[in-house]
Amino acid sequence: MTQSGRLYGIGVGPGDPELVTVKALRLIRAVAVIAYPAPEEGPSFARSIVAGWLDGTQGEIAIRFPMRPGPPPTRVYDRAAAAIAAELDAGADVAVLCQGDPLFYGSFCGLLARLGGHYPVEIVPGVSSLAACAAATMTPLVTRDETLTVVPATLPEDALAERLAAADVAAVVKLGRHLDKLKRVLQRLGVSERAVYVEHASLPDERTLSLAAVERAPYFSMVVVRTAIRRAPGTARRAAPQTT
Amino acid sequence: MTQSGRLYGIGVGPGDPELVTVKALRLIRAVAVIAYPAPEEGPSFARSIVAGWLDGTQGEIAIRFPMRPGPPPTRVYDRAAAAIAAELDAGADVAVLCQGDPLFYGSFCGLLARLGGHYPVEIVPGVSSLAACAAATMTPLVTRDETLTVVPATLPEDALAERLAAADVAAVVKLGRHLDKLKRVLQRLGVSERAVYVEHASLPDERTLSLAAVERAPYFSMVVVRTAIRRAPGTARRAAPQTT
Repeated sequence: MTQSGRLYGIGVGPGDPELVTVKALRLIRAVAVIAYPAPEEGPSFARSIVAGWLDGTQGEIAIRFPMRPGPPPTRVYDRAAAAIAAELDAGADVAVLCQGDPLFYGSFCGLLARLGGHYPVEIVPGVSSLAACAAATMTPLVTRDETLTVVPATLPEDALAERLAAADVAAVVKLGRHLDKLKRVLQRLGVSERAVYVEHASLPDERTLSLAAVERAPYFSMVVVRTAIRRAPGTARRAAPQTT
Repeated sequence: MTQSGRLYGIGVGPGDPELVTVKALRLIRAVAVIAYPAPEEGPSFARSIVAGWLDGTQGEIAIRFPMRPGPPPTRVYDRAAAAIAAELDAGADVAVLCQGDPLFYGSFCGLLARLGGHYPVEIVPGVSSLAACAAATMTPLVTRDETLTVVPATLPEDALAERLAAADVAAVVKLGRHLDKLKRVLQRLGVSERAVYVEHASLPDERTLSLAAVERAPYFSMVVVRTAIRRAPGTARRAAPQTT
């Protein structure tokens, strides 16, 4: 009986090919098969990040997701898991390329749930889009005793408002068609002017601007807002970068 | 007049030298001077991560922090900023090595506040301890519409309880001497049994265990807890890894 292969969930970082880790590179070049999320037609962003290091000799599994709102259909994960399991059963190691970090809102989670109990798995953490966006703003994300809240803009308006009101610093992910809702919520909370918008962090077309100036948000975008609405009694928390 | 050097804030990741990015490595080897946080006596953890790639020809500035609770004294940052500024004024590029990510609870923030307006600065994001801890647990950190809250255990007990109660998934950082307080808070919220403790993530002595079994937490440790106390009406959020 063949010994089964190992499944790797590999974070390839936010987009700049140089923000891939040494470990990710070593493993991506060593495995027999790579797998990656991709749109229904066209190239995979995750694959494009490491394309310069691939030599074309590996097997490839493109996991094609329909590009429409809402969670991807279960069958996409089922089919991808079956294709990957077939390789693992044949003794091949498979690396799933994950933009950012595999376990931070990653589509890898759907594969981990299906394959995790059945094969040896290793996760290689990556530089998250959150860290890349913070770097683009050139401002500390959180310091000292601050709380960071990462909130998907996909939440219903009231739930979004509630979570943002409770944050010291909030990072809002998954903007897309939820941009107007987010703008309304931040307006309501009186913190619109503190909202910094970042798109394509770490890529050549990276842009940082005030949220008010944004009319359309691509998938790879994020808003960071130092809400600081809630303060513990007697503490004066500064909104600007700390001096200690 | 000499053109001033460039200041780099470089994330060197959670500890495994292979979790350094290609960009961090390139810049660390290219600059004239490296600077890094260190204890009052003994070696720097951030420096140790990249030590294997240093050739010993660069200038080095050790920023020595007193190892006692509370925020580091202002004068440590003042002196370090002055030493770094002297190098930058002389035209030397300086890379500040930051464990994890520079802007995620990093001591780099104190230098950025002092030098940021005066010299060209570039931030190189790194793999955070958060991503490394999630990888160690082999469990998705956040998926779909979940909110992640990162909370320092240094907060007063009631503030800590309030923030944890409002989270879907919480990562508690800066444990150290606050371990017992955190245990009390999680007990009070009835979620102790869901708390996963990780120490030395990505290092050879990495350990993952249930929080109940932990008696002493080193500085490089974290607790991840899927609190899921608050649920939007009508949604049944699963506590286990999602299947879609």
